[in-house]
Amino acid sequence: MDFSALPTTAFIRPDGKNRDAIATLLHQVVDLLVETMAQATERSPLPEPLLTEDYGWAKLAKASVDVQQLLIEVQTHLHHSMNAAHPGYISHMDSIPSTMSVIADLLVAALNNNMLSVEMSPVFSRLEILVLKQVAQLFGLGPQANGVLVSGGSLANLQALIVARNAAFNALDHGITQVKQPVFFVSEVAHTSFKKAAMVMGLGTKAAIPVATHQNSQIDITDLKTKLIQAKANGQQPFAIVATAGTTVTGSIDPIAEMAHIANLHQLWFHVDAAYGGALMFSDRHQSQLAGIEQANSVTFNPQKWLYVAKTCAIVMFRQFDQLQEYFRVLAPYMNDHNDWPNLGELTVQGTRHPDILKLWLSLQHIGRNGYSAIIDHNYALTQTFTSAVKERPFLTLASEPQMNLICFRSEPNTVPIEKQDQWNHSLQQWLLKQGNTCLSLPVYRGQRWLKAVLLNPFTTNEHIDKLFADIDSYHTTQAEL
Amino acid sequence: MDFSALPTTAFIRPDGKNRDAIATLLHQVVDLLVETMAQATERSPLPEPLLTEDYGWAKLAKASVDVQQLLIEVQTHLHHSMNAAHPGYISHMDSIPSTMSVIADLLVAALNNNMLSVEMSPVFSRLEILVLKQVAQLFGLGPQANGVLVSGGSLANLQALIVARNAAFNALDHGITQVKQPVFFVSEVAHTSFKKAAMVMGLGTKAAIPVATHQNSQIDITDLKTKLIQAKANGQQPFAIVATAGTTVTGSIDPIAEMAHIANLHQLWFHVDAAYGGALMFSDRHQSQLAGIEQANSVTFNPQKWLYVAKTCAIVMFRQFDQLQEYFRVLAPYMNDHNDWPNLGELTVQGTRHPDILKLWLSLQHIGRNGYSAIIDHNYALTQTFTSAVKERPFLTLASEPQMNLICFRSEPNTVPIEKQDQWNHSLQQWLLKQGNTCLSLPVYRGQRWLKAVLLNPFTTNEHIDKLFADIDSYHTTQAEL
Repeated sequence: MDFSALPTTAFIRPDGKNRDAIATLLHQVVDLLVETMAQATERSPLPEPLLTEDYGWAKLAKASVDVQQLLIEVQTHLHHSMNAAHPGYISHMDSIPSTMSVIADLLVAALNNNMLSVEMSPVFSRLEILVLKQVAQLFGLGPQANGVLVSGGSLANLQALIVARNAAFNALDHGITQVKQPVFFVSEVAHTSFKKAAMVMGLGTKAAIPVATHQNSQIDITDLKTKLIQAKANGQQPFAIVATAGTTVTGSIDPIAEMAHIANLHQLWFHVDAAYGGALMFSDRHQSQLAGIEQANSVTFNPQKWLYVAKTCAIVMFRQFDQLQEYFRVLAPYMNDHNDWPNLGELTVQGTRHPDILKLWLSLQHIGRNGYSAIIDHNYALTQTFTSAVKERPFLTLASEPQMNLICFRSEPNTVPIEKQDQWNHSLQQWLLKQGNTCLSLPVYRGQRWLKAVLLNPFTTNEHIDKLFADIDSYHTTQAEL
Repeated sequence: MDFSALPTTAFIRPDGKNRDAIATLLHQVVDLLVETMAQATERSPLPEPLLTEDYGWAKLAKASVDVQQLLIEVQTHLHHSMNAAHPGYISHMDSIPSTMSVIADLLVAALNNNMLSVEMSPVFSRLEILVLKQVAQLFGLGPQANGVLVSGGSLANLQALIVARNAAFNALDHGITQVKQPVFFVSEVAHTSFKKAAMVMGLGTKAAIPVATHQNSQIDITDLKTKLIQAKANGQQPFAIVATAGTTVTGSIDPIAEMAHIANLHQLWFHVDAAYGGALMFSDRHQSQLAGIEQANSVTFNPQKWLYVAKTCAIVMFRQFDQLQEYFRVLAPYMNDHNDWPNLGELTVQGTRHPDILKLWLSLQHIGRNGYSAIIDHNYALTQTFTSAVKERPFLTLASEPQMNLICFRSEPNTVPIEKQDQWNHSLQQWLLKQGNTCLSLPVYRGQRWLKAVLLNPFTTNEHIDKLFADIDSYHTTQAEL
């Protein structure tokens, strides 16, 4: 190899010959990172987009670009990215990552192991099996339970439903083209990944039958029962019921135990999408809100949300883990067997996969269950403060009573005509961003625009909440006068 | 928040209050990383697994574990992981990552942006669209082409086939339960992800109809034509043909242009799985081997392989990118629109997704097309040396003539009975690992065990190849005498 054709630091040479240059470069990058992230409060939570007239910044070069030039460009990227570490960034289920996530992803990138097989990730494949076994126990899923990591919650929900479908219709080899209308039931306000999963799986989006929610954004059990009877009467074949523990817009928890009972009665697969709410299992005080989850056939839980593990880190757990062997496994004959350790690429939708287990394990060990418990308690206390402040203001309306640390509300003053209220709330969101560096999201819910706060960031304080409501008040005073 | 409940370095405080502690910790981790990776040659390419009697090393703690203790444990992880940076690690399509991958994944973890939507990754969502547009042009896919990144090649192939299926059968909303036996055609030695995709998509694994390959491991066009006629005669509905550019075991390239012609004739979707071989487009000298790829409806290309971008980094490109809008998109009403920039989570199987674009863009800029071209030339030169050495030895057999930098061969000496040759080759693989720190893989191919070399690592030299064949010779001398 003619290494003069490559920049000196193109690779970390395994023979150590560019060790000093690599060390200097990586330490420089750490300084850049620390400088950027330790001053997150000094930038907007949602900076202006990086726009140049011709997007020349994204042009690909033929010759090597100098590394110092690249770092300057990257610094600009950092400053224009979503600033999730900012305590005023409370828009989505995305937040500041644990330090251990950062450390783990650095190391994992350099190692470049592959979760496809035990041979290609001898430590991490085993670690994943061993750690997720313990997580499955924490969820009370029983002695045969375990899980796998997948790159995001949509894949977790997809994988659970594939196993449910294949088990119900023996569809692994023969598919569902001979099967009459398989359907499953899921809250009308559940995550969009269920419709997507239905589409991906060849059921079509209409196979995800939406169940009505009552005023508190939880599944209406009566409607679930009705829809089940209707489906059967229509000649459809129900195969699964999905409960959500932490809906996307309001953080609501469906009546899990009641739904488990109905699933059991009708011999349907019971999946719980606890992508967000699963973190409550790490809080002695709040885990009872998920009672019934231990009866699930499968559970989605994303440490990438409330456990502050950097994206992506999503778990799908199965009460009977060996069902993956029976109802999912597609063999890869070019991989070697490793006794009792499964090649995880044969058991998941992905083949090659990034080792997300190191950042999960390190975060759990470093912050500890006690640490997570303390953060969750803090989030709940803030939520109470926030919710009280909404309720104190007659011009604000809650979408539903918060069950977690999401608050969805909107401004509906008498002085603003109903048809202008969506725009009014949109302007309010912009006002809060500009006046107070608070970034709320603006979801469409029940046909209207709402403001949503997700109180995840451990550095968000009561003072931030007070400032936010002072800004809300000043908007209503000054804008009403205009 | 009572921060006394958390370790000091649990998060990088956005207010800078633990800046020094974080800086010290991250610099320490960089030292650990450099020490480990710059001495990769001093460890085995495939270290012994990390085993303790009770797997206590994976136990989850309730209280925070000291960070220094964690780093000691992680160091052990590093030393027992697959050592892909070692020049003797030539077993799989996994290799040493570019330095820029390591830098990018470090920064991306700290930022914790989300490719789900433009709002959650304002720089990276735009960068992905702009960079992949240029990659699609490099592949000659035309002015309407673009791509998306997905977390691994299996998802890329899956997504391409979903769009093909939905386009053929209008299946997005209504699924395929009313459709009579949709099938597609793919090499019998294609990647396992096609069978998996067929299963996931509700077609069943049997819908991936295997096309025979000739002695050179490429699709036999006559068999493809026969299978097409047979399928239609059987009442099956063909909707796609898949060509592979770089098969998993032998790195073979199907006759792309001929297959494109047949697909066109029968009005079938034409997908090219160039997960591995797509890198040839970055070599002026070798890109002609992929002639015909510019006619594809969709192409999978994984920079995580031959472009040395750390896993995962996989692209799926579409000749008509707007087909994703029509045949894939599932709306997420809780996300905001951003004018002309699509929310990528609506267009891909995943929702939340890790920003893999930064490591791709930085690697392309740093190594440059010229740099990649030089590496690919080096890989080809080594392959020639390797292949000649196999051919010089009458007791070695090539599975097929290498078209890329994969060599699949086995030892078949007269002195070893045929029924013992699988074991003989297995022992040879172990011998090479122990004698010479060369790690070959041992795939099953055509019903037998073979030895496979993937000459990816830029630090693998002619001397390594010479040593490997000296070890092969000494195995045959000493073991034959036993």
